[in-house]
Amino acid sequence: MIIEGKVLIAQGGGPTAVINQSLVGAVLEARKFSQVTKVYGAINGVNGIVNENFHDLSRETTHNLEQVAMTPSSALLSTRDKPDEEYCKEIFRVLKAHEIRYFFYIGGNDSSDAVRIVHQQAKIANYELRAIHIPKTIDNDLMINDHTPGYGSAAKYITNAFIGINLDNRALPGVYIGVVMGRNAGFLAGAAALAKKYEDDGPHLIYVPERVFKIDQFLVDVKNVYDKYGRCVIAVSEGIVDEKGKPIISSLMEKVEKDEHGNIQLSGSGALGDLLGNYIKHNLNIKRVRTDTFGYSQRCFMGCVSDVDRNEAREVGEKAAQFALWDNVDGSITIHRTGHYSVDYRLTELELVAGKTKVMPDNFINSACNNVTEAFLNYARPLLGSDMHYAHRLRASKVEKILNK
Amino acid sequence: MIIEGKVLIAQGGGPTAVINQSLVGAVLEARKFSQVTKVYGAINGVNGIVNENFHDLSRETTHNLEQVAMTPSSALLSTRDKPDEEYCKEIFRVLKAHEIRYFFYIGGNDSSDAVRIVHQQAKIANYELRAIHIPKTIDNDLMINDHTPGYGSAAKYITNAFIGINLDNRALPGVYIGVVMGRNAGFLAGAAALAKKYEDDGPHLIYVPERVFKIDQFLVDVKNVYDKYGRCVIAVSEGIVDEKGKPIISSLMEKVEKDEHGNIQLSGSGALGDLLGNYIKHNLNIKRVRTDTFGYSQRCFMGCVSDVDRNEAREVGEKAAQFALWDNVDGSITIHRTGHYSVDYRLTELELVAGKTKVMPDNFINSACNNVTEAFLNYARPLLGSDMHYAHRLRASKVEKILNK
Repeated sequence: MIIEGKVLIAQGGGPTAVINQSLVGAVLEARKFSQVTKVYGAINGVNGIVNENFHDLSRETTHNLEQVAMTPSSALLSTRDKPDEEYCKEIFRVLKAHEIRYFFYIGGNDSSDAVRIVHQQAKIANYELRAIHIPKTIDNDLMINDHTPGYGSAAKYITNAFIGINLDNRALPGVYIGVVMGRNAGFLAGAAALAKKYEDDGPHLIYVPERVFKIDQFLVDVKNVYDKYGRCVIAVSEGIVDEKGKPIISSLMEKVEKDEHGNIQLSGSGALGDLLGNYIKHNLNIKRVRTDTFGYSQRCFMGCVSDVDRNEAREVGEKAAQFALWDNVDGSITIHRTGHYSVDYRLTELELVAGKTKVMPDNFINSACNNVTEAFLNYARPLLGSDMHYAHRLRASKVEKILNK
Repeated sequence: MIIEGKVLIAQGGGPTAVINQSLVGAVLEARKFSQVTKVYGAINGVNGIVNENFHDLSRETTHNLEQVAMTPSSALLSTRDKPDEEYCKEIFRVLKAHEIRYFFYIGGNDSSDAVRIVHQQAKIANYELRAIHIPKTIDNDLMINDHTPGYGSAAKYITNAFIGINLDNRALPGVYIGVVMGRNAGFLAGAAALAKKYEDDGPHLIYVPERVFKIDQFLVDVKNVYDKYGRCVIAVSEGIVDEKGKPIISSLMEKVEKDEHGNIQLSGSGALGDLLGNYIKHNLNIKRVRTDTFGYSQRCFMGCVSDVDRNEAREVGEKAAQFALWDNVDGSITIHRTGHYSVDYRLTELELVAGKTKVMPDNFINSACNNVTEAFLNYARPLLGSDMHYAHRLRASKVEKILNK
């Protein structure tokens, strides 16, 4: 049975470097099908749907769509609205009024949950609606998926940042802490490890939210590295927690004197890095301690795109249109690794992805809980794409001293 | 007169993305001259010279040198030592002992001052020594030079960051503050303006150290932009000061309650951004305020290199060898713009560059002191190189509402 009607596409949650590849993949593929009467884009995700804030993408030129595909961050803009049952009923009402029969939502686990509820509503109302979730998140935390579009480019950004930072720290030694995005999963902080080439290269230590962060062990770890190399480069997930599951930033603030740090905001700031840095400075008596909080560039920096990530983001959009329009089915597009390195795409039940969070498997984290493993490096490296460049060192021989002071 | 002897090269100060291009340019060119008996590299800048910490670059392969040239951050490592008269006497003693007749030092204004003093010492001792300063600094603050190697790539990083951040902020609106390196000069913060393409794009406001930062006017500026666009993207130089020349971070800390911010360290932290962000949040009642402090990636991020910058960095190294070995003269290599866009290199007296700081000319800053001018954009744009990509937007037409709630 072929259902005639409109396609509606929207983008939700935090932007990525390749989220518009998925948009353009779905739009271009959908426009090929004769049962598609129009292709609409909703502005500001689900918020734009309930407000009927639609643009007609049917007549957008292919060239401009390709230019938009190369542009980071949601071209249809985004929203942080997390639709509940009532909200999804509103969505469904609008979809019906506009005779939308195909709904594609590009986003993370919250977005996939919205797709799931809207699909339920349509079923209850006996309205023919194909609803497909298209995956994206730099956090790489969607269930079933081997990895998610957006992660590879963000990982490439983190790797390139740590290649440079390791060299900078080698030239002007000290302790360096880089705070990386990732509230629940350490995949992105782990990508810092891909920067390492020579044995003494940083990052020397990596801390992820999957393991309890013990501040005393942290000091011991840093001291060991610093004593060995005279420097120490550290990657830390923003989401690290103590044994009670409390964010480290809160427990650290209790440990350090109140008048020194006060109640700095918990997110969108440099507070965690600064607190960790000051803690090292005071307890290990190391003079040069520097911290960076990587911030928004991780997910939207122009021009730092993994070609593997870019192609896969395009393909998941294309597959959404193909599953809906050829097979007349619903679900979430998922990525499955079929070789080193190759992938295939499947349609997975929305229930298995929606609202769930994947974290790093145990074999990706070392037993000391302060670094990633070879298994993680093997997993993550192909996702950076084909045009990575790594650091090179001079190999010239030492000259004998003459004055020998 | 042709002087036979060794060449010594060193790198000082903060790393850049292209500092090794200058190193390799000088090494490869110097190795062509028959009067050059060896080419040495000093490890850790002037510190490595006084400690005779030399490596012999005469037999380093061309391929590996080219690989090193593509690697960011000083391959010979660096130092923050600022040599005084006594220190320079030590340097000279070592140069003499090793029969070094050609001394090339890649660095900023401190480094050029070291070259100046060492050259003086040689003159006094009647020792034939060609001493040449090779320019580099992401701050772009060397006198005489139209611009400096390292700046173009750092500017490209800042532009690419703000292209993405503007899109991110457009998708999820609010106030965003990005703190950019630049203690005395606003050239790098100004580069954020190159990210702007459409009329409503950010950065909407840019604050540089060349102008007094007035916190009350800042609030008015932000409010005006926010009222107009519903969002505001701001670039701020880390070195902004109040009317007394005091860093804004100190005067802000007096304004806000002590228990809220305390004595956060002044540099290598996110403190300035966080303070400005909190100040906006409290005074303008805007909920979503985010701040990033760009940190070390600005000067060493792997893979973000302007080809113009890369080539010029190579050329200043090559020219140093040519001036010293063909012409037997001393000085600082300076870059002069000869067209839009073309440059030529001259040898300038060390006294005119050493220890001095260039700031932005008046015509680069708007009269409201909250942005750069067209003159600056024309100046800076060619330095980003030939492979810049900018953001593209969808141009699809709006769909008429049906439910019209």
